[in-house]
Amino acid sequence: MGDTEKVLLAGVWRDADATGTFQSINPRSGETLEPIFPVSSRADIDAALEAASAAAGELVRTPVGKIAGFLEHYAGLIEESSAELAEMASLETALPVTPRFVDIELPRTTNQLCQAAAAVRDRGWTMPNIDTATNIRSMYGPMSAPVAVFGPNNFPFAYNACAGGDFAAAIAVRSPVIAKAHPSHPKTSQLLAEVCLRAIQETSLPAATMQMIYHMAPEDGFYLVSHPLVGATGYTGSRRAGLALKAAADAAGKPIYLEMSSINPVFILPGALRERGEEIAGELLASAMVATGQFCTNPGITVLKAGDDADRFVAAMRDRFAAGDAGVLLGPGGVHVVGEAVRTMQASGAEVITGGAPIEGDACRFENTLLRARGEDFLDDPEGMQEEAFGNANLLVVARDDDELEQIAGSFVGNLTGCVYSHSGGEDDALYERIVPHLRRRVGRLLNDKMPTSVLVVPSMNHGGPYPATGHPGFTAVGIPTSLIRFAMLQCYDGVREHRLPVELQDKNPTGELWRTIDGEWTQSDVAAPGNS
Amino acid sequence: MGDTEKVLLAGVWRDADATGTFQSINPRSGETLEPIFPVSSRADIDAALEAASAAAGELVRTPVGKIAGFLEHYAGLIEESSAELAEMASLETALPVTPRFVDIELPRTTNQLCQAAAAVRDRGWTMPNIDTATNIRSMYGPMSAPVAVFGPNNFPFAYNACAGGDFAAAIAVRSPVIAKAHPSHPKTSQLLAEVCLRAIQETSLPAATMQMIYHMAPEDGFYLVSHPLVGATGYTGSRRAGLALKAAADAAGKPIYLEMSSINPVFILPGALRERGEEIAGELLASAMVATGQFCTNPGITVLKAGDDADRFVAAMRDRFAAGDAGVLLGPGGVHVVGEAVRTMQASGAEVITGGAPIEGDACRFENTLLRARGEDFLDDPEGMQEEAFGNANLLVVARDDDELEQIAGSFVGNLTGCVYSHSGGEDDALYERIVPHLRRRVGRLLNDKMPTSVLVVPSMNHGGPYPATGHPGFTAVGIPTSLIRFAMLQCYDGVREHRLPVELQDKNPTGELWRTIDGEWTQSDVAAPGNS
Repeated sequence: MGDTEKVLLAGVWRDADATGTFQSINPRSGETLEPIFPVSSRADIDAALEAASAAAGELVRTPVGKIAGFLEHYAGLIEESSAELAEMASLETALPVTPRFVDIELPRTTNQLCQAAAAVRDRGWTMPNIDTATNIRSMYGPMSAPVAVFGPNNFPFAYNACAGGDFAAAIAVRSPVIAKAHPSHPKTSQLLAEVCLRAIQETSLPAATMQMIYHMAPEDGFYLVSHPLVGATGYTGSRRAGLALKAAADAAGKPIYLEMSSINPVFILPGALRERGEEIAGELLASAMVATGQFCTNPGITVLKAGDDADRFVAAMRDRFAAGDAGVLLGPGGVHVVGEAVRTMQASGAEVITGGAPIEGDACRFENTLLRARGEDFLDDPEGMQEEAFGNANLLVVARDDDELEQIAGSFVGNLTGCVYSHSGGEDDALYERIVPHLRRRVGRLLNDKMPTSVLVVPSMNHGGPYPATGHPGFTAVGIPTSLIRFAMLQCYDGVREHRLPVELQDKNPTGELWRTIDGEWTQSDVAAPGNS
Repeated sequence: MGDTEKVLLAGVWRDADATGTFQSINPRSGETLEPIFPVSSRADIDAALEAASAAAGELVRTPVGKIAGFLEHYAGLIEESSAELAEMASLETALPVTPRFVDIELPRTTNQLCQAAAAVRDRGWTMPNIDTATNIRSMYGPMSAPVAVFGPNNFPFAYNACAGGDFAAAIAVRSPVIAKAHPSHPKTSQLLAEVCLRAIQETSLPAATMQMIYHMAPEDGFYLVSHPLVGATGYTGSRRAGLALKAAADAAGKPIYLEMSSINPVFILPGALRERGEEIAGELLASAMVATGQFCTNPGITVLKAGDDADRFVAAMRDRFAAGDAGVLLGPGGVHVVGEAVRTMQASGAEVITGGAPIEGDACRFENTLLRARGEDFLDDPEGMQEEAFGNANLLVVARDDDELEQIAGSFVGNLTGCVYSHSGGEDDALYERIVPHLRRRVGRLLNDKMPTSVLVVPSMNHGGPYPATGHPGFTAVGIPTSLIRFAMLQCYDGVREHRLPVELQDKNPTGELWRTIDGEWTQSDVAAPGNS
């Protein structure tokens, strides 16, 4: 295997113990790309786990400034390499260098790393809780174990297993990361991992703070996420692979946080449709076509109430879909998935009103496809209608009346987001009140009068939602520091001598600014000396 | 089935759709107790789920004062009935009326209900998080779905499915409870449920706010926890049953919070042993024998370092175990479990130094049993040595040296608690620093110089811990409001019109005292009007 690329284990680029090889594909040309990458065996996974476990013990004892410094230095090095990184990612994904990578995704990625660094320094994610009467003190603390991160195909930087949100969150809570790159962009991942390793070395973190494997057989993935040495797993990807990993991790009692699938329903209520249907059609097109529909948050199903306004809206959307150029998908698999989803929706009673077929030629493309279904068809087979296309195919569902609209709202599975457009003057308010209770319990993020594709990295963001959008409705993959809690554990200290407590729980506020709950009140103060309160 | 007791469904005591019947046993006399209780079929579960789902929608719209009022009224009614309740519980469990029920467990139960009521009113558990620049706001909110609660055999009140901690937490987040009583104390559960129903009626909550089923076949339990209409499950009980329920819930993507098993290791470091071995022996005996060893937090394994002090400690413990009266266990099953655990530990190399056999006679009793093992035996078969006796059998492990002591600390599975006794003058500090990193990642609550059996209901309590003590290391079953988060979901509002937001997220602080994070700072203030900041 002399010509095969090396994996990053314990700080060294080594020949993989490979069970096979693979190459990525240029989605624009269909060409197979050099070089050849290894599919790692269990031996590589064992080596990674062993090195990461030792690193976990070291990271727990590493000063916060050093960990934050690493995250910031890594962000800086990514910025320095951004031209090279963006070009490679564009080659492997067909997503554009500008604005996508240089102006949006790379800045988001470095921003996430820097926000995580700030969270490490301010320690707010630990949420210390101190009861002075009983001297029982608790906080979220490190698991002292590695986190496995599986990156998706659609965000080669912001969700990359060796640089993205899960990576930043795990490192911030002092867990080394075993990164499983996505095999659709291995060279981009390798370049990132090289930058990451340099940052590790230049800030003197343990060599195994981040290790990277390109690919592994499904059963070896199950082995990794259920291994006694692993602390938890972060996964972003398809529902099928996610559920298989979840089953393995669950059976071993290992936490796994998954972001699997989302249709992101949009309800356009009749008043809004009448008031500004044309404008909303523009917004829907733009949001649906972001990244050729390959965001986790693209709107996949739009629900309307029957009538002339709905007919006009459907026609306007059809014209827009038909008129737009079809983007290049992330790979041949993407073309297949879109086609399958279109067929599944058709089998459930939806009608293709434009598009519907792959585009001939070398590029990975599918016609911009719009389907329409009646509300009763949707209600007859909500599962089939909610098949995720993950591409440039969308479904418009036209409900007969308010009752049917409400029933449809109650038939969605768990989603990351749900949008409701309503009349600005309040004409839709009664219907809004009927729809939203159904939607609220089914989505992580509820939006008014806007599309869901903008996922801002702010503490109040929830990029999560009920199953099967994710595996648990209480956690978010985006939003720092909230996302860090996933990789932490609740740690209580009962009667522990003060000098042995983590600094977050000692009487003196460790930064002077850390927010802690002391006897039920959030405060930045020290714990009052006995008798002083 | 005219002679069979009725189940509580949708506010009415009804004949069960029964697949069989059962009776409880008086553990003191071995007698079968009247009356006869039904084992419910799936039809009862379906009825409960349907009624609870409707109630969930109502509870979400119910004012906080009404829900808090119910919890407080229920607590008051339990106090009024405490004599009758305690007597019945004592008959069914053999635990004493005083001090156990009247002075400890019933006050804890009503205190939990009242703390939950306060949490409902102050809304702090929702942890609102507001980002003003983006108008993205999030909080923990109700799942709007029923919670199934499975109560254990050992706390007929404080963990009862229709009155205990999981019940209080679920109701506080507005989820109706489907209570699965423990079949070892059905009459106690029935009396409590009657009190609960009266409280529901007198405060005009939905009739199905709490429903109760006494017993069901395992596969019907799996059906319940994985049902599309259920929101989540709280379970306290054996590891075997817990893991089976977990597998069913996990496969359906339904959150399940389990408290399953804990050995609660105690490390007595050499300096402490020399300094106050006799005193610690007294503490260990008292803690190990609380409730005849049937707490989740009784110390099960104590680890010592070999030497004269350890020999004296072992002898002192043996004398104390031998001299004490053996308590009555919760039932015949308990006697069997203790015997099995003793045999498993013996098979792993532990030696019985006192006790070891069931006590002849009608009462459910087992001799106070103490086992001793060498550190190397423990390390040869840590799994067998950690078999939970859940009764009056304890294991002392004597390590050869500091290295072996550290290895043992690194061989425990996840536990609720871990205790370290060390010399008051600091002589054990170097060894403490070696032991505790291993223990910290393996236990939810770390104690110094005290035994683990006191589980105080304060916000900083963690009654949780890594698998297999529970199913997830980030949650606690005790400690209000922290325990409420288990039954909530993270809900984000993105650009939602202000009047449509839950009051917790509106600009004006709903109570004037609710702590919220606004732009990264915890505050009780309103959101500043634009331009005023």
